[in-house]
Amino acid sequence: MTTGEPGACVLGVDSGGSGLRAALVVPRELRRPDPVRSPEPVRTGPRGIDAAHFMAQLLPMARGLLEKAGGGHITAVAVGAAGLATLGDDLRAELPSALAKALGVRRTALAADAVTAYAGALGDRPGAVVAAGTGMIAIGTDLTAWHRADGWGHLLGDCGGGAWIGRAGLEAAMRAHDGRRGGSRALLARAEAVFGPPAGLPGQLYPRTDRPAVLASFAPDVAACAADDPVADGILRAAARHIAEAAAAVCPSTETSADTSADTCEVAFTGGLFRLGEPLLAPLREEVAAQLPHARPVPAAGDPLDGALHIAAEIAAGRLRLPLDSRMLSVHGEGVTS
Amino acid sequence: MTTGEPGACVLGVDSGGSGLRAALVVPRELRRPDPVRSPEPVRTGPRGIDAAHFMAQLLPMARGLLEKAGGGHITAVAVGAAGLATLGDDLRAELPSALAKALGVRRTALAADAVTAYAGALGDRPGAVVAAGTGMIAIGTDLTAWHRADGWGHLLGDCGGGAWIGRAGLEAAMRAHDGRRGGSRALLARAEAVFGPPAGLPGQLYPRTDRPAVLASFAPDVAACAADDPVADGILRAAARHIAEAAAAVCPSTETSADTSADTCEVAFTGGLFRLGEPLLAPLREEVAAQLPHARPVPAAGDPLDGALHIAAEIAAGRLRLPLDSRMLSVHGEGVTS
Repeated sequence: MTTGEPGACVLGVDSGGSGLRAALVVPRELRRPDPVRSPEPVRTGPRGIDAAHFMAQLLPMARGLLEKAGGGHITAVAVGAAGLATLGDDLRAELPSALAKALGVRRTALAADAVTAYAGALGDRPGAVVAAGTGMIAIGTDLTAWHRADGWGHLLGDCGGGAWIGRAGLEAAMRAHDGRRGGSRALLARAEAVFGPPAGLPGQLYPRTDRPAVLASFAPDVAACAADDPVADGILRAAARHIAEAAAAVCPSTETSADTSADTCEVAFTGGLFRLGEPLLAPLREEVAAQLPHARPVPAAGDPLDGALHIAAEIAAGRLRLPLDSRMLSVHGEGVTS
Repeated sequence: MTTGEPGACVLGVDSGGSGLRAALVVPRELRRPDPVRSPEPVRTGPRGIDAAHFMAQLLPMARGLLEKAGGGHITAVAVGAAGLATLGDDLRAELPSALAKALGVRRTALAADAVTAYAGALGDRPGAVVAAGTGMIAIGTDLTAWHRADGWGHLLGDCGGGAWIGRAGLEAAMRAHDGRRGGSRALLARAEAVFGPPAGLPGQLYPRTDRPAVLASFAPDVAACAADDPVADGILRAAARHIAEAAAAVCPSTETSADTSADTCEVAFTGGLFRLGEPLLAPLREEVAAQLPHARPVPAAGDPLDGALHIAAEIAAGRLRLPLDSRMLSVHGEGVTS
């Protein structure tokens, strides 16, 4: 990874529910250095993600990284942020000039977290990436535009994600408790071990503000039951079907791809959900083969922070191939028109 | 309806998300008088439903009803309250003595709103009642114990209720928006007409505290699409299946019924959900016939406030047949041991 001038570094930032992660790539360094983390998530206010709070957390991290690297200066920054599309107005308005003023940054990219997940997984090749943890989103590009499927949150979609799987598992537990059809005594036993008496479960879930995370916390229990319990297995098979449906909706067709060398669509799956292992991955392979016969599943090369570093290096060198889009990916600064 | 002594009345109260409704039954009056309503819902505090706030709202209503009836005194009160099982500790501890002190009430019944729905629909006959609006719960009794199915809220169940139907409809709309399988362009057009551009829907839903009500508000749109849209029709058929599953789980079997004259189980459906009409009712009839072959669907005789008045009259006369249960139905006061 070259950054075009001596001592010039690029900074990648990943902003999510648990805070900021940032890493610096310095010239002639092949390995990404260990990232640093902020102590708290960036606040969200009336204008969305608070740019001033973002800067207050990022600046000491960036200066610490530069110091640890033995000096240099940051020419480009790429930030991937959860909620950027809907909550990114303040970041888009304030962050590029604030970074220029405080650190002399020449170019700044602001990306939805799905875009940095994409860039981390596939770099700037056309294809489709599913990013799944508590939620689930698929994005794809033929390098002319972004296509998105799902990622609509736990009530409108995120079908097949961690909260979806955990919620379905707890519903099956309550069905067994009630004596309704579709219940699972194995999942009921798991739910009782985790949450206590079933009648107390609503009181433990609904008052919380992190309900999707509470639901997702039960997904590993569903996976653990799948080998012996047909209800749990059915939940993971349905999740795999939904995930493949989202991937199929965004996978660029070879006819419309700007990359005419592509005769197949690369598809990568990234995020904590896939640590559920074979109970999810086995049906997912089957669904991908059936629903995306022309897709080639590939391992994700890196994580969203790798994606942010990739985008930062590309904008520093003026060679970004990923398409710009006002809500998904914007670049600000010297010699940039977007 | 007799209340056992001259001038003696009974008061029924229905407490829910939109406030209190109360009505008085006076001797020799056959028709239930029009109920009165409180201006606001009863507050919920650290001890659950706030008994002092409940009394502050109920007392002027009760005195107004007595005055309008031309005098008399209230011997018995029955209160049906949403959330009584989990949030009723303060009501159980304070309400009976507060009503005795303020109004000379001799006996007070505290019932889960599902129990007053049951009593309103079937009186004190054994059977099963499904009460559905935004949520969905089924309760049944053989007059020795209560059995409950579902009613676990919009994330753990309430399968087939208004929020469930509306949520499924909005998911199908977003699937069409994304180009995923299982989408409905008809539901997408409805969702856009109601909520505006699809990408803005998460921002309209998730910040609200009344998310289940927002979801349920879309259920009539799903019903309106069902005649011409197979996805909407499939949602209502699935809802009907879930509702029948809950009814089947609580319907007392004739062998175990304490009422040996019963050779079938009466089943009634009550609540605003069933105003969706034939798109829901037609598949519900089919599901009930298939899943509850020994059940006899009957119309609900009345609503939860009628049920509260029924229970109040029965405890006044000392002849309540519905089973007592510390969380579902308790009676407090003179000559009462529960």
